[in-house]
Amino acid sequence: MNTQTLTENFIDELVKITGPEYVFTDSESLEKYGQDETEDLVFLPHVVVKPANAQEISLIIRLANKHKIPVTPRGAGTGLSGGALPVEKGILLSTERLNKIISIDEKNFQATVETGVVTQVFQEAAIAKGLFYPPDPSSRGSCFIGGNLAESSGGPKAVKYGVTRDYVLNLEVVLPTGEIIWTGANVLKNATGYNLTQLMIGSEGTLGIITKVVFRLIPHPPKDIVMLIPFKSAEQACEAVNSILHTGVRPSALEFMERDAIEWSARYLNLDLDLPKDVEAHLLVEVDGNDLDLLSRDAEKVYEAVSGFDIYEPLFADSAQQKEDLWKIRRNVGHAVKSNSIYKEEDTVVPRAELPALITEIKRISTKYNFKSVCYGHAGDGNLHVNIVRGNLSEKEWNENIQEGIKELFRYTVAVGGTISGEHGIGYVQRPYIEIAIGEKQLELMRQIKTAFDPNGILNPNKIF
Amino acid sequence: MNTQTLTENFIDELVKITGPEYVFTDSESLEKYGQDETEDLVFLPHVVVKPANAQEISLIIRLANKHKIPVTPRGAGTGLSGGALPVEKGILLSTERLNKIISIDEKNFQATVETGVVTQVFQEAAIAKGLFYPPDPSSRGSCFIGGNLAESSGGPKAVKYGVTRDYVLNLEVVLPTGEIIWTGANVLKNATGYNLTQLMIGSEGTLGIITKVVFRLIPHPPKDIVMLIPFKSAEQACEAVNSILHTGVRPSALEFMERDAIEWSARYLNLDLDLPKDVEAHLLVEVDGNDLDLLSRDAEKVYEAVSGFDIYEPLFADSAQQKEDLWKIRRNVGHAVKSNSIYKEEDTVVPRAELPALITEIKRISTKYNFKSVCYGHAGDGNLHVNIVRGNLSEKEWNENIQEGIKELFRYTVAVGGTISGEHGIGYVQRPYIEIAIGEKQLELMRQIKTAFDPNGILNPNKIF
Repeated sequence: MNTQTLTENFIDELVKITGPEYVFTDSESLEKYGQDETEDLVFLPHVVVKPANAQEISLIIRLANKHKIPVTPRGAGTGLSGGALPVEKGILLSTERLNKIISIDEKNFQATVETGVVTQVFQEAAIAKGLFYPPDPSSRGSCFIGGNLAESSGGPKAVKYGVTRDYVLNLEVVLPTGEIIWTGANVLKNATGYNLTQLMIGSEGTLGIITKVVFRLIPHPPKDIVMLIPFKSAEQACEAVNSILHTGVRPSALEFMERDAIEWSARYLNLDLDLPKDVEAHLLVEVDGNDLDLLSRDAEKVYEAVSGFDIYEPLFADSAQQKEDLWKIRRNVGHAVKSNSIYKEEDTVVPRAELPALITEIKRISTKYNFKSVCYGHAGDGNLHVNIVRGNLSEKEWNENIQEGIKELFRYTVAVGGTISGEHGIGYVQRPYIEIAIGEKQLELMRQIKTAFDPNGILNPNKIF
Repeated sequence: MNTQTLTENFIDELVKITGPEYVFTDSESLEKYGQDETEDLVFLPHVVVKPANAQEISLIIRLANKHKIPVTPRGAGTGLSGGALPVEKGILLSTERLNKIISIDEKNFQATVETGVVTQVFQEAAIAKGLFYPPDPSSRGSCFIGGNLAESSGGPKAVKYGVTRDYVLNLEVVLPTGEIIWTGANVLKNATGYNLTQLMIGSEGTLGIITKVVFRLIPHPPKDIVMLIPFKSAEQACEAVNSILHTGVRPSALEFMERDAIEWSARYLNLDLDLPKDVEAHLLVEVDGNDLDLLSRDAEKVYEAVSGFDIYEPLFADSAQQKEDLWKIRRNVGHAVKSNSIYKEEDTVVPRAELPALITEIKRISTKYNFKSVCYGHAGDGNLHVNIVRGNLSEKEWNENIQEGIKELFRYTVAVGGTISGEHGIGYVQRPYIEIAIGEKQLELMRQIKTAFDPNGILNPNKIF
């Protein structure tokens, strides 16, 4: 079938699967589902379909396979690498109706969740039962569990608790050939065959559509202390990260924000923030646990660790509201930058001790290629988001020069043992850079795996490689 | 080439790669490397070769590929599923000369290690720098890091700290086609392409020979408290596991031992142990951390959680020696059973709350099939090792009836959401059961992955499936 247009007959087949109220070809829907949070990119699909469950998805996939129509799965569309963009048109498959928390099993510290559930909704349901699902990307109020699985999202808690993939026991997946499988078992350890579960996580919707997940949970630590430490030097803030971690304290967040990041975000949120002129960066540090005395001692150790640097007095959040405000500022940096200008977001990650050198290198490259960069992120993980602001750059500067600058940056992160994405994925927009990070033979193996799962190449084509 | 014998010419080629002192065809070597810790199985290879590094391994693999000779990689030979048995003869490739700890990077909390390093040797080197590598299979004093990676080994600390796969950042691997690759990057989070690292871990030497690993480490918790709790009912001991975990305390070990397990092991070690007649099982509980006061409070909570069960007074280890003795008993159960009789070891794993029912089911099945079982293991993970003792069983009973019993047991673990191996792998001896745990489509995908990596099927053939 010609993928330039879908026949009415094909649309009728989709309608038979989901009912007419869940198949959309109006231009408003195509526009809405033709974009995600990635830059200003829009690709219109031919049709948007919203199936109710794995069975309906399986039927859609089988139909698409028969006619070799591309299918692009989409969660909440909060991705930053364009993984949900229907770049080859065809079917945009939204998982938004798979929105049930099926069970939270307090006995086994497990939960079974559909992948269209909003991350924060699930987190709060777990906390209501005294259990904790730590991964919380900044977009947790709107992103879906499914997107988090597709990209193995992290977030601020990863420094202590790990990323999405560390909480997954088992996945229900609709394969690109239509079969519905479970990838593992509902157990904490599993040495039974190849790990299809971990292969699926982070595969960005190219190997299957994840429809259910069984998570392991941990007891919820009810107490925390949050502190914001202003540094006169951004490099020193990065160096302090290691000093903090060498105290033996394991912070539940250890976030870096350049001056612009925190100022733009506070302004975007209409929050007061009066920074001394010579503050270049902040660390936002959280410790959590069961015992406030112990946490106070931990916070004290953190304070001692940073007191040798050129800092202003840290701010200890002394109310729930103040904690929430600090976290709001951190979580909204991306939105704030976006509200200022079109931007590209790079997701650099290096061995943690390389952070101070990384920030120096970023500034060197941004001067060389004449762009403005706003840096922030999960310093405790060595994961720094670099927002490249378009500002007044010409079309040519934006599309060509910048790409050279990004290549130079990524060659650097790879050279020091890091890579080109820590938690956002390759998706569509990082594809030109993947060969910087991944060797030819490894890419060949990945392509062969893709072919084993998806012989017709219909699922999320033109992503990753 | 006929694999029934290898030509002298072929042996000469091996000698050219490693030098003559590392190629063995004498019967003593073939016998020694023809077995591991799995039951009483022996398969003689044609030749044993001990390469020095990835480059030599690559040359051996290329030679084997040219002549389609099977290659079976072997670490320390402590495996319990026969993963290192050269069942198709050919080349037995020992990694024992890859025994260097290349670096322990205190700044980044990372270590780079060759895979022929003994697990405990690496653990102690990390502790000497204040860092902690938690996975510690019972055989840690002799097993290799490479074997731990091949099976994604766990051990008692997994309940708090996770298993081997949770500490791996990056792997150097010689592929079955001879290329040497790195699978990831030296970073804490990575969303760059499919996760070849996690695919390799637990693949039991069928997808590549891992030659180096980059681990993440954590700060070493210097303090611990160890307690041994005697229960009058084995089911109650299993039930108490959940009661302990629901206190919010996160024990660093939560081990179950049936009466026979602890008695046989103490006798094997010549340690005094005078158990009241009606003790059916024990829990061995450890809590660890930085602060002894806090740990005492945790131990107190554990004690409260079990005090409602029918127990004898717990033993709190009050010296380093006593702690060591208790752990020695736990670690030597397997050896003790083996010294009594040939046995099969099953590695059942279920959602933790299913443990009490599992132990009841094991006893029902062992009565039905007329075998003696000794149960122990990582109760905190829902992972129970079931040693089936041969005793006086006839050849037929041992080889046929028992297999039916094992099938019944595995069907049960799978039916309650568990699987057939938690940390020992499928290897050779669990192959007849894999279809109980893994569906046809999943197996087909695994076979296709195997073919993508190993088109000639030379690497560790006849393992897993």
